[in-house]
Amino acid sequence: MQTNEMQSSEIQTNEFQVWLSERLENIENVLNSLLPTADQQPARLHQAMRYAVLGGGKRIRALLCYAAGEAAQAPLPALHVAAAALEMIHAYSLVHDDLPSMDNDDLRRGKATVHLQYDEATALLVGDALQTQAFITLSTIALPAFQQVALVRELALASGSLGMAGGQAIDLASVGIILSSTELETMHRLKTGALLQAAVRMGRLCGSNAGVVADEYDASLQQYACSIGLAFQVVDDILDATTGSAILGKTAGKDARHAKPTYVSMLGLDASRALAKELHTAAHAALAPLGPQGGRLAKLADLMVERAR
Amino acid sequence: MQTNEMQSSEIQTNEFQVWLSERLENIENVLNSLLPTADQQPARLHQAMRYAVLGGGKRIRALLCYAAGEAAQAPLPALHVAAAALEMIHAYSLVHDDLPSMDNDDLRRGKATVHLQYDEATALLVGDALQTQAFITLSTIALPAFQQVALVRELALASGSLGMAGGQAIDLASVGIILSSTELETMHRLKTGALLQAAVRMGRLCGSNAGVVADEYDASLQQYACSIGLAFQVVDDILDATTGSAILGKTAGKDARHAKPTYVSMLGLDASRALAKELHTAAHAALAPLGPQGGRLAKLADLMVERAR
Repeated sequence: MQTNEMQSSEIQTNEFQVWLSERLENIENVLNSLLPTADQQPARLHQAMRYAVLGGGKRIRALLCYAAGEAAQAPLPALHVAAAALEMIHAYSLVHDDLPSMDNDDLRRGKATVHLQYDEATALLVGDALQTQAFITLSTIALPAFQQVALVRELALASGSLGMAGGQAIDLASVGIILSSTELETMHRLKTGALLQAAVRMGRLCGSNAGVVADEYDASLQQYACSIGLAFQVVDDILDATTGSAILGKTAGKDARHAKPTYVSMLGLDASRALAKELHTAAHAALAPLGPQGGRLAKLADLMVERAR
Repeated sequence: MQTNEMQSSEIQTNEFQVWLSERLENIENVLNSLLPTADQQPARLHQAMRYAVLGGGKRIRALLCYAAGEAAQAPLPALHVAAAALEMIHAYSLVHDDLPSMDNDDLRRGKATVHLQYDEATALLVGDALQTQAFITLSTIALPAFQQVALVRELALASGSLGMAGGQAIDLASVGIILSSTELETMHRLKTGALLQAAVRMGRLCGSNAGVVADEYDASLQQYACSIGLAFQVVDDILDATTGSAILGKTAGKDARHAKPTYVSMLGLDASRALAKELHTAAHAALAPLGPQGGRLAKLADLMVERAR
């Protein structure tokens, strides 16, 4: 019995690994085909957009979208497009966050940041045009129009001043300030959590009965997304404090250097690790009502918490 | 007979002036209500977004959208929303264009630019969040979903790397370079023309048979938008070279100072004025098939060409 269970778990892990490699290859191909080609005018802008998006990144948002969508029997071609739009928004936010007037960073995804590789004005336009490209992309998705509109709305709300951009503004304002744990959580729920949640919800919205029923299933997904979004950020803070730039592919230790409040600066390392574990458990628990359909989301939660970069 | 014609023309002008004041008041109220309030967190970001959008600007894009939409019997509530989305995109582009890494400008719409009034990082986020707000806004429009998707697509295509942002990239690359008149036209067709054209098309798309028929009527509108978009830019170049900053509400003469190619630098003042007149005439001619329905668009063309700022 125990042997059978172990075998079954190994099969699941293998199946997940195969799925993971496939989807990582898918998203790269889809992004490649949905971005303007490098020879299209203005060529320098298009080259820089492709530099910012392709060949790097963990693609967490795309993977969450795929996993949530496939669990909801969403058509794969639609998921490709939704996942690509999410990754474009994420890439735009990184390009702008790295600018001299923001974090002034020189390393991202193991490469020079866009404003160093090109120039500052180009990096500004790259971010601007990538945000737009996400909405161009969503407008081509092969789904009924009401689902398309729901996806546009979901992505826009998650990215705007009450989502990701708003979190970034709070982050800016918090330099050198001691935040309460509630304030820190609010900042992260907006800055990273909103788009991670949108990834899960957009996958779900590509499913055929999306927007029609809001049932226990959706509540579970929502709870999962909320827990894993915060867990991701806590782990980010732990990695920023404990891991070198070479492994991270981005500048390590910069939060402390910029006097930015983090979970590690607020709670210490041990309590941060305990919090990550707690949120990880909560994410798994939230998936229980989904049964086997939640399998990939559970394994993505493991991946997001147990990652080394 | 002549007296009657004159009276009729005066009545039309009065009717247009009344319509103009109403719509200018409408768009200000709609933008005010569609932007997050100044006390919503993050408050500084929201205050800066409102500073960038409200209380200034000629609202040309909004007016074109209203006029084209009302000519196509589009519902006014939908036009309010589409016009607001256009003005948000336009405002975002101004905030980012004024940044130190771009035009490094300190005066806009008669006020200090956003990065001077607030700070550079906030100005970056204001532009980012205003672009997103345009798509949030469009997703709330009270129209059938297929029209909503068409509007999102239209606005996104006009704003992205093959539209406005692409024009800006060509503009950047053209500093100190002598462009051919075709290259200069391409740059302007993207940088300003694309969004002005989108304004006309989006008004039209709010009409009930939009997207269903592509008839002579739409071809006329398209031709009008194309001519007036370029005329607008030629006039901009003339004003930049001949009018003071106090009247313009933005820094005058900066194109020459930045060694940017303009119609005036390429053709001289007289030929630029002749070109503006020619495009103005072409815009009027394009409207002929619309009959009286094109009346407001014709008067907007006059306004755009004969403006003093």
